Amino acid sequence: MPGCRNGWRSGWRWEVEESMKTLLIRQVLLNDTIRDVLIKGNRFATIASSVMVDADQIIDGRGKAILPPFYNAHNHAAMTLMRGYADDIELFAWLNQHIWPFENHITEEDVYHGSRLAILEMIRTGTVFFNDMYWFSRATIRAVEEMGVRAAIGRLFIEDRPGHILPRNLAENEVLEKLSVHLSDRLQLTFAPHAIYTVSGQTLCKIGEAARAMDQRIHIHAAETLREVEHAVKEHGMTPIAWLDRCGMLGPKTILAHCIHLTPDDIAILRERDVTIAHMPCSNFKLASGQFRFHEVMEQQGCRVAIGTDGCASNNNLSMLEEMKFAALSAKGESMCATVAYAQTIFDCATRIPAKAFGIDAGVIEEGRLADAVLVDLSHPLMVPNHHLVSNWVYSADSACVDTVICNGRVLMANKKIPLEHEIVAAAQETCIRLVERIRTTK
Amino acid sequence: MPGCRNGWRSGWRWEVEESMKTLLIRQVLLNDTIRDVLIKGNRFATIASSVMVDADQIIDGRGKAILPPFYNAHNHAAMTLMRGYADDIELFAWLNQHIWPFENHITEEDVYHGSRLAILEMIRTGTVFFNDMYWFSRATIRAVEEMGVRAAIGRLFIEDRPGHILPRNLAENEVLEKLSVHLSDRLQLTFAPHAIYTVSGQTLCKIGEAARAMDQRIHIHAAETLREVEHAVKEHGMTPIAWLDRCGMLGPKTILAHCIHLTPDDIAILRERDVTIAHMPCSNFKLASGQFRFHEVMEQQGCRVAIGTDGCASNNNLSMLEEMKFAALSAKGESMCATVAYAQTIFDCATRIPAKAFGIDAGVIEEGRLADAVLVDLSHPLMVPNHHLVSNWVYSADSACVDTVICNGRVLMANKKIPLEHEIVAAAQETCIRLVERIRTTK
Repeated sequence: MPGCRNGWRSGWRWEVEESMKTLLIRQVLLNDTIRDVLIKGNRFATIASSVMVDADQIIDGRGKAILPPFYNAHNHAAMTLMRGYADDIELFAWLNQHIWPFENHITEEDVYHGSRLAILEMIRTGTVFFNDMYWFSRATIRAVEEMGVRAAIGRLFIEDRPGHILPRNLAENEVLEKLSVHLSDRLQLTFAPHAIYTVSGQTLCKIGEAARAMDQRIHIHAAETLREVEHAVKEHGMTPIAWLDRCGMLGPKTILAHCIHLTPDDIAILRERDVTIAHMPCSNFKLASGQFRFHEVMEQQGCRVAIGTDGCASNNNLSMLEEMKFAALSAKGESMCATVAYAQTIFDCATRIPAKAFGIDAGVIEEGRLADAVLVDLSHPLMVPNHHLVSNWVYSADSACVDTVICNGRVLMANKKIPLEHEIVAAAQETCIRLVERIRTTK
Repeated sequence: MPGCRNGWRSGWRWEVEESMKTLLIRQVLLNDTIRDVLIKGNRFATIASSVMVDADQIIDGRGKAILPPFYNAHNHAAMTLMRGYADDIELFAWLNQHIWPFENHITEEDVYHGSRLAILEMIRTGTVFFNDMYWFSRATIRAVEEMGVRAAIGRLFIEDRPGHILPRNLAENEVLEKLSVHLSDRLQLTFAPHAIYTVSGQTLCKIGEAARAMDQRIHIHAAETLREVEHAVKEHGMTPIAWLDRCGMLGPKTILAHCIHLTPDDIAILRERDVTIAHMPCSNFKLASGQFRFHEVMEQQGCRVAIGTDGCASNNNLSMLEEMKFAALSAKGESMCATVAYAQTIFDCATRIPAKAFGIDAGVIEEGRLADAVLVDLSHPLMVPNHHLVSNWVYSADSACVDTVICNGRVLMANKKIPLEHEIVAAAQETCIRLVERIRTTK
């Protein structure tokens, strides 16, 4: 089974003894100071100017900075298979003529290979967690378990008529339910109804109740397009946000993807219900959905905003580095003000804020926290000069600056090398060739 | 002298015999077909399914695609020294309190080291040419000659009162004039008056005459901010574009940086005069200058648009890859239409169009053209799957996908390695530390 060399053995979980090892990062830059960072098991144990221990693994941190990695608030990981498959097309032609026909041919095995490619790209760009919504998510769980990252995996719900969830969803979600007791602590399940225009109010109410009963998160697209808003007003006599509130879907464990078209009342509801907005500026610009009002919604009205990338069909990558820059710059452009959306604010929206929103005790490099981190190459031209680390990271860096990625105490990439990368890429390539061939021969 | 190992010997120019060598790239992907590409001297000589020659240098092109590299239409290269030095600040506070005090302390040697860092970054991100405007440009010329890229270097003009060009400009431009007969064919000089609010009409008229007499290009900032437009209307009774036209500054060899705030009449003038607009969306968003109307100005009204990055103080990198994505997505966002600014259009604006605008016989991979190229790693996760090469390049790639860079027949980066990189980075770091120290002690 792929992933063996990483410690993967008889099942889908890392061996327990692996996670009890110690890892020492020597002489790394942390908050403007050179530090030794000792990780025991899956947590930061000691951070000091010098740590004298005999660790199982040692990383030379000289010339590198340690930063919290990224937590991607909204994704459809396996859509990496569709990167570059259909661009520059109007939304509904894009869905009807390209995306949905493609998805009709996707198998569970395809989703596995697409998810592995996605996780590979995420590790390369410094991301250790993603909040996912897609088909065949058992295959995504398998990829997550094998490759050592974290994820929130959605039980997808779409209806073909009000009150009638697709049998496919029900079958897949039943599989997830059985699997849930076997998941590692890097994984959580969420309830992921697709949107208010594909899931009826009665079903949303039931989902809301189930999520509260199980104390799990809800993940749904909301207020992405003007068409959605118009539809909600026509059907329900209220905005999508007000409708979701009426259905009992909004609370501190709710993640709403997009939230572009908001009224002042919507913003007040989002703040009062303490929901998390997942903000994906690249996707919003590429699909011309509209411009999220970051400054107003977060900085003036105090809503919680976490950055995500959306899937590769509408981005077309999963780089949170690129997304941070896009988020900062589009916020300044939208508000016509250069002094909004500071680099540090945007960095928080990609690290500390989403980590907390998903209940992950990480997002800052501190003793006692879960040991998630990136080591950044400070001598890469994009990071030079070192006037301001966070500014360079948000406004200048790309994946070439990411040297090492650690998740839950385990090194997933060291010196820009990821185990099995060539095999994962080759399998994804072959998967796509076969998929496109199947689509062609069916036409 | 730095650069010796690259063939640099007694002066500022590559040795002539070096450029007569042959370079064979074997089995590389070109326009969906595997090809051998033979370069003789500084031009593509033979492109065929198989080229059987005994070349001086051979590159294995398997698993790679060959593409034209980037031509950056507007830059202030040495401002890499200011990357991350001052962000998220209102424009005039930014200039008065940070940028200008910094620049007051910059020496010619600093500009040399900043330019080398900039060129290093440009090579890493696939760029072989930049259109520059800055102080001490003799030092930038030195860096360009040594490192093997191309550039258009501006004779800078700024006035402290109407008709009175800064003595510093005159002295520096005199140096450039003496140097001009010694420049390699990778370099050209331009006339670069800073803007209409820093150079008077009488001087602009004289510069226009001189540029026409010498058949050289003009490079100026124009219509970047609403404040500039308001000032022009108040001072001259017309828009910045109309004023530049009145001063005889507009023609096919004029490059206008920004052009955000345009009237329909301005657009008609730009089209009729056949000028090139340099479009820098990252800088425009970061400084909240406004949103360039790409679809209207280029796709509907037929003006020529070339993409640039601006300097690192307002971007904060020189990646044309990132800038292409920003240009495509911001055009869709601004026009609220997903079907504008296709990937291929944007790619042309970063390659073929600027190459032609600057009189460089390159920008496409064809026999007889100047041998400028990038080799792209097709197995990098960001380039997988390979549904559509140009889409992946514009919407997904970052510098980690750039494997090899060739300019004027010479390999500047091979297998992601650039000669003297560590030395260049270290010198730039030291330069910045000294500069910041000088600024601190003077305060």
